[in-house]
Order: sequence, then structure tokens, then C-alpha cells
Amino acid sequence: MTRPYAGKLDIKHGTVNMSHGSGGRAMAQLIDQIFMFHFDNELLRQHNDQAAFKVNAGRMVISTDAHVIAPLFFPGGDIGSLSVHGTINDVCMSGAKPLYLSAAFIIEEGLALCELERIVISMAKASREAGVPIVTGDTKVVEKDNGDGVFITTTGVGVIPDGINISGERASPGDVIILSGSIGDHGMAVLSSRENLSFETTLQSDSAALHGLVKSMVEVAPNIHCLRDPTRGGLATTLNELALQSSVGMILDEQSIPVKAEVSGACELLGLDPLYVANEGKLICICDAADADRLLTAMHSDPQAQDAAIIGKVVADEHHMVQMQTSFGGSRVVDWLAGEQLPRIC
Amino acid sequence: MTRPYAGKLDIKHGTVNMSHGSGGRAMAQLIDQIFMFHFDNELLRQHNDQAAFKVNAGRMVISTDAHVIAPLFFPGGDIGSLSVHGTINDVCMSGAKPLYLSAAFIIEEGLALCELERIVISMAKASREAGVPIVTGDTKVVEKDNGDGVFITTTGVGVIPDGINISGERASPGDVIILSGSIGDHGMAVLSSRENLSFETTLQSDSAALHGLVKSMVEVAPNIHCLRDPTRGGLATTLNELALQSSVGMILDEQSIPVKAEVSGACELLGLDPLYVANEGKLICICDAADADRLLTAMHSDPQAQDAAIIGKVVADEHHMVQMQTSFGGSRVVDWLAGEQLPRIC
Repeated sequence: MTRPYAGKLDIKHGTVNMSHGSGGRAMAQLIDQIFMFHFDNELLRQHNDQAAFKVNAGRMVISTDAHVIAPLFFPGGDIGSLSVHGTINDVCMSGAKPLYLSAAFIIEEGLALCELERIVISMAKASREAGVPIVTGDTKVVEKDNGDGVFITTTGVGVIPDGINISGERASPGDVIILSGSIGDHGMAVLSSRENLSFETTLQSDSAALHGLVKSMVEVAPNIHCLRDPTRGGLATTLNELALQSSVGMILDEQSIPVKAEVSGACELLGLDPLYVANEGKLICICDAADADRLLTAMHSDPQAQDAAIIGKVVADEHHMVQMQTSFGGSRVVDWLAGEQLPRIC
Repeated sequence: MTRPYAGKLDIKHGTVNMSHGSGGRAMAQLIDQIFMFHFDNELLRQHNDQAAFKVNAGRMVISTDAHVIAPLFFPGGDIGSLSVHGTINDVCMSGAKPLYLSAAFIIEEGLALCELERIVISMAKASREAGVPIVTGDTKVVEKDNGDGVFITTTGVGVIPDGINISGERASPGDVIILSGSIGDHGMAVLSSRENLSFETTLQSDSAALHGLVKSMVEVAPNIHCLRDPTRGGLATTLNELALQSSVGMILDEQSIPVKAEVSGACELLGLDPLYVANEGKLICICDAADADRLLTAMHSDPQAQDAAIIGKVVADEHHMVQMQTSFGGSRVVDWLAGEQLPRIC
């Protein structure tokens, strides 16, 4: 289907203007030559305002995330790959196999078309690598200074295999807490690329899709109780959420929590605690102690979770506190994140 | 579940600040006291990062829309109700019954909490009235002047009844084109409320959920070929899209297209053509001529489509042109919208 506009977008020199959000010719041109061209798949090619697909009877999940990360490009990723990984991860933390994504773009007038294309190419690559196509979308444009480059909201749907029941309220005393790898990489990589905070580092964001890892985990331990990716608010806040949802306490062992030397160094420099720094390619798993060995073996055979470790245990606690046994032999409360630590980190 | 923060948000005097997007305590407070409180439903109450629900085997649809309308409140609606209606309509234009919505908020620092609450209450009301709950969501905050009040991206999923096959490429010569009611109401109502364009009118947006209307239509005529809501770009652009998708031409009869006197008056004043002005509660239906009477009878018994009328027919045309027989007896080409007519209209 060739849409009725003359010629090609000047992606090299052009910028997005208000007419690209009009619903008319210019929008059709932008959609066809950038979004459709790179995301290309059968459902998108139907040019309807929705995508239809067949499902088998069962349980489905839906999850959505708005991505407003600044800057748009950072070591190890960009807003495009992040918006694919972030939503795939939210879908698969239920144990589900992610099926399809939608993507809605809010673009600030003046964004260079070459930047937009670079982001879309990165999204398309992340989506293809994950095997989760972007099947429907929307494009809006707002005036200069009413947005910031581009915001991308992705929504994912997936199917939960029979027999899986993973949810935040299923942690119970005696369970062990497994973390899939080092914390703080994403947050510190993004911070290192902010103009006002620039510091020397070779740190990369850990941004990655975790559905392959989750699949191998539920295969060996279908009775996993909780899975969650510790994004905004970091490991500390995510564990507090789970403790509250399940009405339990937790005791962590500081020495068992992997933190890269570069992350802890940068955190010290900036007065941050890595426990509260965002991750985009890590997960927390809470399970029966009896399942832990099998899970760790499965996780260690996945390149994304080679440093997976048991970092603590679930205990009875009517105050739902998360506590940590420190490297110095003491104990401290690990509270929810208060205030604002790292704005626009995802 | 009571989350661990002291006291209540000061909704009357407070504003959104960056900590409300942090992932920590302040965000939990905002989510619980505004979003969860008003959207309240069983799936949302589970506090997971995704919502799980059962489906029967069949065909599902997914559709997404980012809403960036300015101003946030307009005669007949606001960004909250619009974001529910818009996505329900995109889902049901496939013939599907909408099941669930997700909602992702991008809030500009400084938005008054009372305005946010007013929008959320309106969203909750629209969602309840439509019977389509908001089951999962996300909240981000961006710095002042990097957003504009609030942007809301909603995504909807639904199920298509067996035997329904509605798609933009199914129009064929001989088909009739039905429009459900008057055009231009939404666009002109929004324009009337813009500071720089204020004009006297009692016009209201037609923003409404159309899934009830669609249900009664597919019941009497399961073989409907195309359904689409003429939003951005208006009736003219939507018909051109359909003509192109189906590789057909269209001939419209100007006199049969309902336009309210206030809309045509305001359009004349501002130099706009109502054919290109956005609608948010109207649909175009293309069907076999033999189905038209039954459809019109069903539509006329629905308060949302009492002015439904046949406005034209589908013809063979290798150039996929939409033409109109004017009230003066002439004929003119109705082209795609070019340039930008009404920015940020949805």
C-alpha cells in the first residue's frame, strides 16, 4: 500500500513538526517511513487502528509503562530499547510469555528525524531480538517546551502457562530471596551521561529483556512465589513493596548482594545508596527454600544471571520490615525510598 | 493493604512534584490516594506490575492512544474521559467487546493535585459507565516545561465475537457509507475553549464510548465490512485512509452529511472545513447495500446515532479518490488533510 504523499522524508536534516501529529498526510509519511518501515510485521501492515490476534483459552496479562528517561541515549541503551525491555519485563514477571507490544509516541516539536529514527531502529532491534513484535501504535506531537524529545509508552500482553501463580502477595516466612545479578548498573550508567553529573566510567546499563530467563526459571520451579524487577526505587523499595503485599518481613545479607566496584565507587562519590538505584535487567525471585538450588542452577546457565545469589530470607514480621545484616556484623532497617533520588531514570 | 506513609495528600492545595515519580513513598501515596482510590477494582488492588485475567479461545485486539489534548478540560469532557472513550472506540471498531484498559500518566511537575484528581475522577466515571475497568497503570513525573499538565496513554484489549471480520481493506464497489451523526463537534468544542481562540458557543464535545452502538450494529449485521472513528484528520482523512486500504474510490453526498449550524458557523469564522475537524463519538460504517436498512434502524434506536445517515457509496477507482457531490450540484475531490489544522485535539 503506497500512501499518497510525494517523496521521502529528509531524515538526515529534517525535524518533527506539528503537522506530523495532525492525522493527515505528513503523519502518514512519518508513520510509514519511520515506524512501519522499521517495525514491519504482518499485523502492523494492516493499517488498522488496532491489531487482532488469536489466543488460546487461559490467563493473559497486560502491563504498561511510560518511558521518560533523560537523556534519550545512554551507555548500554536508549529510550527505544528500554521501552521494549521495560514492558516485556513487567509482563514476564507474572511468569507470562510476552506476545505483543503496542507503542505510543509523544514527540516534542523540533526532534531531529535522525534521532527519532535511531530510537525506532533500536526499538525494532530489541523487539526482534525478544521475539515480541510491536503490532499497533500511536503518534502525537506537542509544541516545543511542552515535551522533552520523545516519551514512549509501551503496553504488552502475554499468556501465563497453566499451573503458574506468581504474585506479590505469595511470599511467606521461610522463603528465600534470590537476586539475579549486580544492582545499580542502569541508574549509574544513566547518571554518568547527564550533563550536569558527568563522571568517568565504563559502566553500561543492564537494560535487557528477561523473559527468556523467566521461562527457564518457571520450567524448573513452577511454584515460584514472587518475581519482580527492581526498577525505580531500586532493590530496597521493591523488597519493601513485596514485604507489604505479602505481610511478611525480610532479612537481607549485605555481603551477598552483588554491586560492581564502579557502581559502589560512583554511588559513594554522589552520596547514593546502590540499594535504591534503578535496574532494568535484574529480577528478584522469592521461592520455597527447597526450590532455590534448582533455580540457581538454571539461572547460572543463563548469561543474564550468572551472578544470581540468595541475598536473604522471608521472616514473620507484623511490621513488614526489610532489615539487613551489614558487612560489619550489625543490622539496619532498609526503608522505602523517601523523596526523590534519581528523577527520569526510566 | 495500608502503605507506609504518614497522613493524607493535601489534594486541595498540593501540587505534583518530582518525588511523586520516584518509585518510593511519595509515589505510593499518590497512586493509592488518587489512582487506586478512584479506579478501585479487584485487579488493580493486587498491586502487581501487571494485571492477569482469564480469556476464552478466540481473537483478541489491542489498541493504544496517547492523549495530549490542550486544554485539559473542555466543554463536554476532559483528557480523562477522552482517554477512556478514545481507546475503547479504537478497540471496538474491530467489532470487539472491550475488556480492560491500562493507563500511563506523564505528569508535569507543578500540576495541581486537585486538577489531577478531577481528571482521574472523570476517567473512573467514564470507565465505570463503559464497564471497562482500568486494571494496570504507570506514573511518571517530568520537570516543569518538559511536559504540559498531564499526558495519558491508554491501551485497551478486547475480544472479537466469532464470525465478525471488520477491517479497513474490506470496502468494495457497491457498498454504502454510513455516518453515525454530526461531524466536527469535538474539534470545535475544544477550539472554543482555547485561550487564543475563545468564541461564544454552547457546543459540547461528542466524546463518548461507542462499544454499545457497535454491539447492536454487529448483532443485526455481522457482515459489516469496515468501521472507523473519524478522529484526527476528520471524516475526510478517515475516508481517504479506508479508500486507500481497500483500493476503491468513494462518492459522498454533501447534503446528507450532518453538520450542526454552530459547527458550520464556527468553521466559517475560523476558515476551517468541518470535513477535517476531529470527532470523538462518531463512527463510519461501510457495508453491503443490503445491510444498510437494518443497520440504520438499529443505529436510530441508539441515542448516540439518531442522526445516522447514508452519506455516500463505494465505487471502483484505481486512484482511490474520495469525491463529493456538493449542495450546488458540482463535484469536488475531498483530499487527505495536508499540513496541520488543529494541533493537540486529542
